[in-house]
Amino acid sequence: MIDKLVEKIKKTNAPIVVGLDPMLSYIPEHIQKKAFEEKGETLEGAAEAIWQFNKGIVDAVYDLIPAVKPQVAMYEQFGIPGLMAFKKTIDYCHQKDLVVIGDVKRGDIGSTSAAYASGHIGTVTVGSQTFHPFEEDFITVNPYLGTDGIKPFTDVCKEEKKGLFILVKTSNPSSGEFQDRIVDGRPLYEHVGEMVAKWGADCMGESYSYVGAVVGATYPEMGKVLRKLMPKSYILVPGYGAQGGKGADLVHFFNEDGLGAIVNSSRGIIAAYKQEAYARFGAENFGEASRAAVEDMIKDIDGALH
Amino acid sequence: MIDKLVEKIKKTNAPIVVGLDPMLSYIPEHIQKKAFEEKGETLEGAAEAIWQFNKGIVDAVYDLIPAVKPQVAMYEQFGIPGLMAFKKTIDYCHQKDLVVIGDVKRGDIGSTSAAYASGHIGTVTVGSQTFHPFEEDFITVNPYLGTDGIKPFTDVCKEEKKGLFILVKTSNPSSGEFQDRIVDGRPLYEHVGEMVAKWGADCMGESYSYVGAVVGATYPEMGKVLRKLMPKSYILVPGYGAQGGKGADLVHFFNEDGLGAIVNSSRGIIAAYKQEAYARFGAENFGEASRAAVEDMIKDIDGALH
Repeated sequence: MIDKLVEKIKKTNAPIVVGLDPMLSYIPEHIQKKAFEEKGETLEGAAEAIWQFNKGIVDAVYDLIPAVKPQVAMYEQFGIPGLMAFKKTIDYCHQKDLVVIGDVKRGDIGSTSAAYASGHIGTVTVGSQTFHPFEEDFITVNPYLGTDGIKPFTDVCKEEKKGLFILVKTSNPSSGEFQDRIVDGRPLYEHVGEMVAKWGADCMGESYSYVGAVVGATYPEMGKVLRKLMPKSYILVPGYGAQGGKGADLVHFFNEDGLGAIVNSSRGIIAAYKQEAYARFGAENFGEASRAAVEDMIKDIDGALH
Repeated sequence: MIDKLVEKIKKTNAPIVVGLDPMLSYIPEHIQKKAFEEKGETLEGAAEAIWQFNKGIVDAVYDLIPAVKPQVAMYEQFGIPGLMAFKKTIDYCHQKDLVVIGDVKRGDIGSTSAAYASGHIGTVTVGSQTFHPFEEDFITVNPYLGTDGIKPFTDVCKEEKKGLFILVKTSNPSSGEFQDRIVDGRPLYEHVGEMVAKWGADCMGESYSYVGAVVGATYPEMGKVLRKLMPKSYILVPGYGAQGGKGADLVHFFNEDGLGAIVNSSRGIIAAYKQEAYARFGAENFGEASRAAVEDMIKDIDGALH
């Protein structure tokens, strides 16, 4: 799957991923109204609004981008109906040939990580039948439990040709509280980065590993160091746009081949119609606003890289 | 909710929690067969088998114990139908007046943690209506992202009188890879433990905080140190039984008031009928085997504490 991701990034010339993280407050009134008329002011109504909003955005931008990253929390908060919209979104994005990165940040002891791996990127067996329950292409994973919490995920990646992005240095303001603490003269995130490189070494695609890392756009200097520590790991870079990261900050997340990083924007794309720069489209044309925001993001990053 | 948990622990004299972590391989043939006859060898069939198994165990042990801890991964691996069985299990345990600890190990940047908190221990609003989507009483949380990833959970705890158990030192063999690394002369887990005490300080119930910690039974010496660092935090102790922890290892997880810890056993209770010690019950009477295993666990821990 890493090979497919790299190929699609080259083809679109867009090392970007659109974060499908729908808050109800991002969803235009007319979509919410219609969904609530059909399904009531219920969890099912919220899920329908989310699904229609996602579909509008995916339809508007799928030809410009290699991948999407639905954040499962935004669906899980609406319970079972919300998770049904998550699954529906994944399936629809597959139909559009997009690579789907499930931002689930799971991670647990071995047997439990194995269950998460089966459900999200692998298979489960029931009697004589086999199922792919959620069927993302990549998922994000939390490393706090160490190697035996990660191995079940890499095992499934090898079997299924799927991939991971493991949290190394997250984009949020307090990520340094534990991640930056100095261990043997270097910050903890560097040790985690080295382990990501190690875990990824026997999960190689053509030029990059199936095992990537998450490093926030908001910490460009740390990205520079981590880039060198994990030369074969793709870096998923959140924090661009609404969280404060800019194109110029991103240069050092990439390798000299112009590859090696994929930059996420969520709010900045999906709620573009609410920003002054794209207000001309209006809420009715939220998809076109998102398309314009994707085009601008591609230009911003391309400009920074060249 | 911490006050209810403490009260129920005192009443049952059982500082234990039964982990409802059903693997299909734990579920007796006759239950699987009936479920597959009704719903097919499908995700729905697996979910039905899980639900019937859980119900049998809960019915057999609910009067002996204060709490249950369903591990969401074991349900999530069966996709949407699995998660419906998770929700059904939570609701049924509430009917039996059990405290429900959702072992979800979520944790993300602030806005995302807020969504998880809403979905699991809080509420979401859709139009003019408010819902409690999963409605656990406590959930487990991963601290790797620091304070701004935790605060949305503690905020919801305060509003809803719910609680957390934050991962400090996990029970798995490789938990030391990052958690034991020395920072300023002390292992990282001690720093995390201090933060748990700090986060919990303004979330106090009568005698304990709503904000507890997870510390594995497999690391009793570390438990001893952490007990003192977090005197007001309840410690959820996994790793008893199948993972190798014994009653005698648990003494130092408790305070001198005999409270302050709750010990989880999953496989050791729910798959008791498969162990030699309880084989006499047979698969048909798996619930009674679980009841006997709970009684033995209560004795083991009570013996160690007195």
